[in-house]
Amino acid sequence: MTLVFYDCTTAPSPRRARIILAEKNVPHTVVNIDLAKGEQMGKAFRSINPNCTVPALKLKDGTVLTDNAGIAAYLEATFPDPPLMGTTPKEKANIASWVSNIEQNFMMGMAHALRNSNPAMKDRALPGPENYQQIPALAERGLAQVDHFLKAFEKTMADRDFIASNSLSIADIAAACTIDFCKVIGKPITNAMPNIKRWRNGLAKRPSFNC
Amino acid sequence: MTLVFYDCTTAPSPRRARIILAEKNVPHTVVNIDLAKGEQMGKAFRSINPNCTVPALKLKDGTVLTDNAGIAAYLEATFPDPPLMGTTPKEKANIASWVSNIEQNFMMGMAHALRNSNPAMKDRALPGPENYQQIPALAERGLAQVDHFLKAFEKTMADRDFIASNSLSIADIAAACTIDFCKVIGKPITNAMPNIKRWRNGLAKRPSFNC
Repeated sequence: MTLVFYDCTTAPSPRRARIILAEKNVPHTVVNIDLAKGEQMGKAFRSINPNCTVPALKLKDGTVLTDNAGIAAYLEATFPDPPLMGTTPKEKANIASWVSNIEQNFMMGMAHALRNSNPAMKDRALPGPENYQQIPALAERGLAQVDHFLKAFEKTMADRDFIASNSLSIADIAAACTIDFCKVIGKPITNAMPNIKRWRNGLAKRPSFNC
Repeated sequence: MTLVFYDCTTAPSPRRARIILAEKNVPHTVVNIDLAKGEQMGKAFRSINPNCTVPALKLKDGTVLTDNAGIAAYLEATFPDPPLMGTTPKEKANIASWVSNIEQNFMMGMAHALRNSNPAMKDRALPGPENYQQIPALAERGLAQVDHFLKAFEKTMADRDFIASNSLSIADIAAACTIDFCKVIGKPITNAMPNIKRWRNGLAKRPSFNC
């Protein structure tokens, strides 16, 4: 039995794991979970991942990894080539730090903006098994967080092709998956972000990013 | 020159790094940053960590690691004994996954509850250089997140002494630093949480947790 990857092609989170699987050329089969139809909340998927979220990755022994953090750590340790989480202590630190920054400030801001305003996500302001009401003021704050992140990110990328080291890392993957989804909150990459644009165009040359 | 650790003894975040330094017996000097007086926002500290947050760790070459994710990754790679982030791929995955869960659902819930309600944190609803207004509804939601996390966590700890592996990991450290701080939002460990209590009492025997 090979690895089983629980995916949803329209969502930004599982795309992060999908790109890692592609970069490391890891054999796996795919099961698509239809988030638009709420399949992640159903009994069948809940028995696989009680968190009701994708991505999830079922290992050969039946263990299920239920989030991006676990999946990235497992794949890096099991399929170390190419390294996507750094090789030296400073690279590892810098990549971990950037992923934390991207998740807390950029991804979370985008999620707040979307999940607290979209009528289709009523009572689904947070992912997971519990329902939470939307908070309109939090949607506004999410947009402000995204603006602050992008402004600083544009400056950072002036002098580099990759975010956190001299080669592709999970920081580039996390940021690209978020930025590609930002059009849904009305924040696409614009001509006012030439450095971000150059970085993103560089990534687009990799087959793994065309998924 | 040794490592320089920027700390604040009253805050939960730097305590996570402090315990890792103690567990790994890493030589370092300490600079205390007075968060109550807003020292993290001042020019002097901003030149060290532009994120205006503690913990921060200055390396011998002058590089500054500016968050817990970076500090943990660096210390684990540089001082591998004892391992606090797992040794096998599955341990590494499980620990990373738990840290992500603790940060997103427990720590974030507590931070939302505190920072969106405490009058002393007006306009400081998020850490970092930018100001964000408090959102009272988000303080409420934070309390609900903490309740949901603790309920599930109490069940999880029924059959184990450590959260994510057979020995201490950064998941235990992250959860303990958060739970010890929960009294400030009116959510101390109670007798209704016997498993959490047993786990926390076990950790209390380690000198590193008395910091």
